[in-house]
Amino acid sequence: MNVEGRWRRTIEVAGDDVIVLDQAKLPYTIEWMTLRTVEEVARAIRDMHIRGAPLIGATAAYGLAIAARTGFDLDRASTLLAATRPTAINLRWALGEMQRALAAGADPWAAAAKIADDDVAMCEAIGMHGKQIIEGLGKKDRVNVLTHCNAGWLATVDWGTATAPIYKCHDAGIPIHVWVEETRPRNQGMLTAWELGQHGVPHTVIADNAGGHLMQHGQVDLCIVGTDRTTRNGDVCNKIGTYLKGLAAHDNHVPFYAAVPSSSIDWAVGAPEEIPIEERSGDEVRFVTGYGARVEIVPRGSAVANPAFDVTPRRYMTGLITERGVATPASLAKLFDR
Amino acid sequence: MNVEGRWRRTIEVAGDDVIVLDQAKLPYTIEWMTLRTVEEVARAIRDMHIRGAPLIGATAAYGLAIAARTGFDLDRASTLLAATRPTAINLRWALGEMQRALAAGADPWAAAAKIADDDVAMCEAIGMHGKQIIEGLGKKDRVNVLTHCNAGWLATVDWGTATAPIYKCHDAGIPIHVWVEETRPRNQGMLTAWELGQHGVPHTVIADNAGGHLMQHGQVDLCIVGTDRTTRNGDVCNKIGTYLKGLAAHDNHVPFYAAVPSSSIDWAVGAPEEIPIEERSGDEVRFVTGYGARVEIVPRGSAVANPAFDVTPRRYMTGLITERGVATPASLAKLFDR
Repeated sequence: MNVEGRWRRTIEVAGDDVIVLDQAKLPYTIEWMTLRTVEEVARAIRDMHIRGAPLIGATAAYGLAIAARTGFDLDRASTLLAATRPTAINLRWALGEMQRALAAGADPWAAAAKIADDDVAMCEAIGMHGKQIIEGLGKKDRVNVLTHCNAGWLATVDWGTATAPIYKCHDAGIPIHVWVEETRPRNQGMLTAWELGQHGVPHTVIADNAGGHLMQHGQVDLCIVGTDRTTRNGDVCNKIGTYLKGLAAHDNHVPFYAAVPSSSIDWAVGAPEEIPIEERSGDEVRFVTGYGARVEIVPRGSAVANPAFDVTPRRYMTGLITERGVATPASLAKLFDR
Repeated sequence: MNVEGRWRRTIEVAGDDVIVLDQAKLPYTIEWMTLRTVEEVARAIRDMHIRGAPLIGATAAYGLAIAARTGFDLDRASTLLAATRPTAINLRWALGEMQRALAAGADPWAAAAKIADDDVAMCEAIGMHGKQIIEGLGKKDRVNVLTHCNAGWLATVDWGTATAPIYKCHDAGIPIHVWVEETRPRNQGMLTAWELGQHGVPHTVIADNAGGHLMQHGQVDLCIVGTDRTTRNGDVCNKIGTYLKGLAAHDNHVPFYAAVPSSSIDWAVGAPEEIPIEERSGDEVRFVTGYGARVEIVPRGSAVANPAFDVTPRRYMTGLITERGVATPASLAKLFDR
């Protein structure tokens, strides 16, 4: 999407270097990072300098390409990269794809580039299917979409997943406005606000607490969220707090969709309780980062807990927007011939 | 409750002065403010140096006592004080009580002290009724209570409303642990964490997004929230985000209670849509305050919205804990002979 006035991808190759936007500093400082070693790639994923399930997958793929070039043992590199984030399924999927391609003698950089290009094509397909849903609402005036966390351009190689329908509508001249939830504790909503702003999409930042109230008052036409892992039955694991918006959407008859690239579907998992939920550092709750500063907000002496994801049960999902089209939870497996 | 090692009220009279804790600086700086004029009282309420519906009522009552002493026109003082916060019903209730008492020739300071003492008695009664609910859960091990915002000691003259059952249980030796939601955008949960800590009650701070997930996983035995205004039919207007927890509690069969002093019941209002919802400054979303600093977190150029309250419809309320006992939404009017 457009960033600083020109179309860029979140991960690009320049000569021997892999270049990514440092998302730990966004949206307050815009800085591109250069990754040259497997360890740098692993650290960038683990410390969330890059984030978002699809981009994690593509970055890990380039991590194995770097391993191949630098003579780093491929199995050790895979183990190291797989251990960086426990919940995202794309990470393991991309590492598996790369290992199969390399075992078949493919060029490592071409194999990684294919994973990145496939991600772009997948996001564009999700964007076109989601655009049809939005057009199907038949609204003559502004369409209000609510999203949680960042399943945007920044979380993928281009377009985003949950944001792809938004960008496709905006680029087609459909008047669209996005309610952006700040998404505590890490405030990835600020990334969504930033990237929407860079591309010129009207949007409003709200506290996570406000989404239900807006739905009660007819201010939300549609919710679209991302997913870190979706069960074969259509239960959607996504950033903590998504479940609450699924409940509110259900209560107010607001359509609630997840953008689900097939790489995020875990066909081996059938029920919410089988998905491990990452408990992240309490410091993410204790400290808030903004322009030029980081502030400690929790009283010293108080304990904190920080579960990073939750699962929205299938009964609250109106539909799953995949690259093959839109499925209900019940029809998801059939859409992928499973 | 205990603060800095001794039992104090949030509003005290010392000589000619009214002394309150400056809650805009809490929990990072502990400072008592002296209020000497009607304007100072109005500003303290409007700028949320004091907050919480019952404490707002008691403070406004002392505001009229100050008006009487300083020769400030009582009607003008009432209008000024009533205009400080549009949603809290206690404010208008306390001003009405004071005007009736003064018209009947009561001593202004005694009349204000009665409103404060009555609030303490009301909170203690709510505490004892709520304690019975918690004892009725029959848990042998730790009882986990989730609360949102601050309906605590700090929001009242003593004990709190939602926290009164917690303090009563804790003081009675019942092992109780509180999940404290941070309550963006103003993070009043930090006040709850601070006051629970001052009194020695075990607690854990979580992001507002985490409450639903904890309920899905059996980590919450009971929710107790406060209210700024409750309809005669038991719809509960409270801090933004409360509604989402009502939905999650319902979905997971977790009892969901509001602590409802009768002063917060608006008998003239029967339906959620009749309650005006305050839209507060966007700066509350844009800026976060912590120890020694304030940081700007929303990307410059992004719009913000900040509805401050929402309404949890009666169908999600297990019960309303009043000073007269526990009512269901359907039995609330009967309990008060209305």
